[in-house]
Amino acid sequence: MDSKKAAGEKAAEYVKNGMKIGLGTGSTVYWTIVKLGEMVKEGLRIEAIPTSEQTEKLAIELGIPLFKPYPSMKKLDLTIDGADEVSSDVNLIKGGGGALLREKMLASYSSVFITVVDHSKCVSELGHFPLPVEVAKFGWELTSIQIARLGCAPTLRMANGAPFITDNGNYLLDCPFDTITNPAEMTVKLNRIPGVAENGLFVNMTNILIVGRADGMVRIHEN
Amino acid sequence: MDSKKAAGEKAAEYVKNGMKIGLGTGSTVYWTIVKLGEMVKEGLRIEAIPTSEQTEKLAIELGIPLFKPYPSMKKLDLTIDGADEVSSDVNLIKGGGGALLREKMLASYSSVFITVVDHSKCVSELGHFPLPVEVAKFGWELTSIQIARLGCAPTLRMANGAPFITDNGNYLLDCPFDTITNPAEMTVKLNRIPGVAENGLFVNMTNILIVGRADGMVRIHEN
Repeated sequence: MDSKKAAGEKAAEYVKNGMKIGLGTGSTVYWTIVKLGEMVKEGLRIEAIPTSEQTEKLAIELGIPLFKPYPSMKKLDLTIDGADEVSSDVNLIKGGGGALLREKMLASYSSVFITVVDHSKCVSELGHFPLPVEVAKFGWELTSIQIARLGCAPTLRMANGAPFITDNGNYLLDCPFDTITNPAEMTVKLNRIPGVAENGLFVNMTNILIVGRADGMVRIHEN
Repeated sequence: MDSKKAAGEKAAEYVKNGMKIGLGTGSTVYWTIVKLGEMVKEGLRIEAIPTSEQTEKLAIELGIPLFKPYPSMKKLDLTIDGADEVSSDVNLIKGGGGALLREKMLASYSSVFITVVDHSKCVSELGHFPLPVEVAKFGWELTSIQIARLGCAPTLRMANGAPFITDNGNYLLDCPFDTITNPAEMTVKLNRIPGVAENGLFVNMTNILIVGRADGMVRIHEN
């Protein structure tokens, strides 16, 4: 069993009858969703909300009931999602897929947020993975200059030869900081810049971290 | 001379030949723009960028040269704008007109930011005027619940029977806090909420405050 599958399937064990759950996107949480599909076939009753169209499609294929519309939901019991980088103090960089806001919102409105990764995502300090920062289109070059002053060289994310557009109609800047020593402080500094809509730092949000190892075992860290 | 006109015209005295300036929107800065129009006719050479279509139209009518595109501009010499509320320590609530982000960006990228108001806008503490908070459409009801926890009852701003949409494609929540004792702290708390794109608190941004009085005199406060 590979490390992603090990972590992803382990997370499914936390899902209980009657729960409202948030389902993330990516190659590790993929295995959570597949496992949940099996559990639903065996009688598990849950309602899920996906962070992406990709996950929505997969959930529908697997027969996992979805609930809509999103805003009517007040609180989720559990959200399971992957990460692009996890630090030793269990802070995250997310948003490689471009769905920052939706992912942060689901995590924030869940009683429990489980992060599933394979061991290759674990680092001592965040920052090697370029931090995705969502910015308003208006004046984005000025916003980029301000972000650069925090210690990185942002690049505008492109898709098919044009700037990538988020679900919220914003641009994404990928910001390679190399090292983010204090993610909480960095979040405050980024948010203070006019034009910054959201950033990919998830600070003190993970309640349970499940790390898959190459031998198929998992390491579980509860906050 | 009324108080708005007194303050607005006084601000025009700070505009010098060759300056790149930001022009705000509203009934006080209106008088600044009118005055600048006269000065341009008398030979003043400036380039201006407006915070709204309304101001753009007025500047064109008055023959004030505009420069575009906005993002090519790196730094403004001066921006002059109004405010919905000014506290005794010269922090502001802005955004009653709905152009939060553009206004904050111009103020932020100007060497000098002048705020012009009539005396009725001056309060000891901010918060009686409902604070405009710009939020992503996605999950806005959840965002509203989180903002409410900070001590207000937000209302979704409407226009012509539908939600008001900002230049950035977001919604606006008007948040009557009654009293905002620590605006810097409130800014951090608001920005931390997923879905909050920008807020109308302008903390430590005003360099020069010009307050017009009913007798046509002005009070000038330099930070």
